[in-house]
Amino acid sequence: MTKKAIVWPQMYPVAGVRIGAASAGIKKPGRLDVLLFAIDEGATVAGVFTQNAFCAAPVVVSKDHLAHGDIRYLVINSGNANACTGERGIQDALATCEAVARLGNAEPHQVLPFSTGVIGEFLPVDKIHAALPQSVESLDTEAWEKAARAIMTTDTCPKGASVQFEHNGEVLSVTGVAKGAGMIRPNMATMLAFIATDAAVSQPVLDILVKVAADRSFNRISIDGDTSTNDACILVASGKSRSLLTESSGELYEKLSDAVVAVMQQLAQAIVRDGEGATKFVTIQVSGGGSTDECLKVAYSIAHSPLVKTALYASDANWGRIAAAVGYAGLPDLDVSLIKIWLDDVLVVEGGARCSSYTDEAGTRVVRQEEFCIRVELGRGQCSETIWTSDLSHDYVTINAEYRT
Amino acid sequence: MTKKAIVWPQMYPVAGVRIGAASAGIKKPGRLDVLLFAIDEGATVAGVFTQNAFCAAPVVVSKDHLAHGDIRYLVINSGNANACTGERGIQDALATCEAVARLGNAEPHQVLPFSTGVIGEFLPVDKIHAALPQSVESLDTEAWEKAARAIMTTDTCPKGASVQFEHNGEVLSVTGVAKGAGMIRPNMATMLAFIATDAAVSQPVLDILVKVAADRSFNRISIDGDTSTNDACILVASGKSRSLLTESSGELYEKLSDAVVAVMQQLAQAIVRDGEGATKFVTIQVSGGGSTDECLKVAYSIAHSPLVKTALYASDANWGRIAAAVGYAGLPDLDVSLIKIWLDDVLVVEGGARCSSYTDEAGTRVVRQEEFCIRVELGRGQCSETIWTSDLSHDYVTINAEYRT
Repeated sequence: MTKKAIVWPQMYPVAGVRIGAASAGIKKPGRLDVLLFAIDEGATVAGVFTQNAFCAAPVVVSKDHLAHGDIRYLVINSGNANACTGERGIQDALATCEAVARLGNAEPHQVLPFSTGVIGEFLPVDKIHAALPQSVESLDTEAWEKAARAIMTTDTCPKGASVQFEHNGEVLSVTGVAKGAGMIRPNMATMLAFIATDAAVSQPVLDILVKVAADRSFNRISIDGDTSTNDACILVASGKSRSLLTESSGELYEKLSDAVVAVMQQLAQAIVRDGEGATKFVTIQVSGGGSTDECLKVAYSIAHSPLVKTALYASDANWGRIAAAVGYAGLPDLDVSLIKIWLDDVLVVEGGARCSSYTDEAGTRVVRQEEFCIRVELGRGQCSETIWTSDLSHDYVTINAEYRT
Repeated sequence: MTKKAIVWPQMYPVAGVRIGAASAGIKKPGRLDVLLFAIDEGATVAGVFTQNAFCAAPVVVSKDHLAHGDIRYLVINSGNANACTGERGIQDALATCEAVARLGNAEPHQVLPFSTGVIGEFLPVDKIHAALPQSVESLDTEAWEKAARAIMTTDTCPKGASVQFEHNGEVLSVTGVAKGAGMIRPNMATMLAFIATDAAVSQPVLDILVKVAADRSFNRISIDGDTSTNDACILVASGKSRSLLTESSGELYEKLSDAVVAVMQQLAQAIVRDGEGATKFVTIQVSGGGSTDECLKVAYSIAHSPLVKTALYASDANWGRIAAAVGYAGLPDLDVSLIKIWLDDVLVVEGGARCSSYTDEAGTRVVRQEEFCIRVELGRGQCSETIWTSDLSHDYVTINAEYRT
């Protein structure tokens, strides 16, 4: 994939959300690595976090502070994940919240901390605190690209997405940035995403919205199947719009939900495209499942198979590996004679065997592309799911086998 | 790993079990690719098979025939897996059973067929049938190495193991061969193992024994986490010993069980050592689990993590990735402050963070070896489990990204 072709999109500012960044020299001098989101009073904030039991200190603190509500700041550092750092890690994350609160006339529990970078090393608290005043001074509603750059670790490009929609004569924006290029880099951790809208949304509805949208975007991608210690996705509703959304249904909810899902899917797909060593962007669609869970089991079984991923890297239409991955996904009483498998529109498998019309040439034509779709019909229900993944290349091994430096 | 250092072991013949092999030219001319085990009347035979729903035709037929009992022949071909071949695959497997039965004065249902090789191509039945007479003529109790070689596909070495034990003044043997070098090779499928003993064992006890021993050997290894369509492990008890074993307890059962487990573990470990591109042989021990399932979830989470495997390949003691893999294994209410992680005898993680005595030098000394142990104590119960795995190297990608030829 020609990663350089990724064009930075137009990013609509979100009233009530300002961004400031500074260089603390955490890993490299001169690089933006401390990011601040300042959120006007009256906003609502919701988030979803990693399920990893070894979750990092900032995740523990952010979840705790989020439960209090009334969040005014997000503070993010790159270069150090503050993960596997025990009790001292918690104290370091809290100290950073206190420093932001002092500068910003807020309470420490109104600050959510996030970290991404090396696992197992203590946070350079002094460096971060020294850089905070500059972050505060540079606060600006227009600085979204700076935000995307300040959270990069080994990402090869900044990731942003932004959409607007109209409701009752008012134009509303949803804008976000994300980072991540493997569930965990060499020992860089983390997928982080920060999305904001100027819509006014009640806390219960925002809690539902962030969960639903993350499930349809960040929870539908896989590069290597590893789940980081620091993953977080935060949705801020600054509340500047006229009408307050208090129900998770109706026209405004549908419009906002569509916009948030669109932004999160663009960000999630940008993460897959920037996947470690990725040369292919592959959509996996599974239909005819008895439940969402069945569809996802099959989709991830394909997406996580090193044999499928290496075949895709080689542009080899090795459908036997795809069929085998479907077969070991763990679906009870799976009747393989009902299963169909397509590569884009080319039918490959039906009736438990290779389709009689299928030719290797037709399959190869599909998988030789940089982007294509593997489609599986299970023939046992009405559910369907879509996920996105990448291939497994020599570069993935090289990137991840490098010594920590 | 110096694969050439693997020495072919002494293989004790098993009275009542004869082996014949021939060259049918399925993939390459002149190479042994059709193997026959002839089993004297009065033996018992038990097996465990792949859980893959896309199981191959020979697996379907073998399971069916095994249910009838009174098995007299095992016929195995390499070079073609007869998998994803639909109804015609079943007919081809049955035709091979009929051909063996005709030559060997048996009924077709007394023959178990096995295949390993390319997925999705039809079995060259004529070639196999033409080679069967030579297999029958060459039947011999001493031909175990020939057996190991005839079932190889892309294995780099034949795999055999054999032990003897004494019971009531009688010496009994357990001897076996296996093949496999990845759960599925480029598009070579399958782990196959055939183990025989001259002990007399009732069918119910043999059924238990094969399951218990496979669970402690072949079901405790992982190279790439992919489960083949053709996996099978068959245990033959030829019944030549004086005393018949009819209980799954007592002195004889324990001795036989220990011997079968020892042979199967040696074979299973030989498969890992011959893993695709493997440069490390890694034992993963998980203790302190609340159940066997908990221990295995953690062990396989580590063994299947591409990030852990690439770090091991690089001799990088990247304990953060091991901790993260423990964290996302999916254990409910996992208290990471109780978890300890060792590399051999070097304590790396305790109290949710890096152990204060740990140094990178000490960790690197361990993972630089060709063989070492990752040990995890969960601190939540009394169960423990051990599995064996390999690293993920450039060669794995090269081997699996090669075009099918």
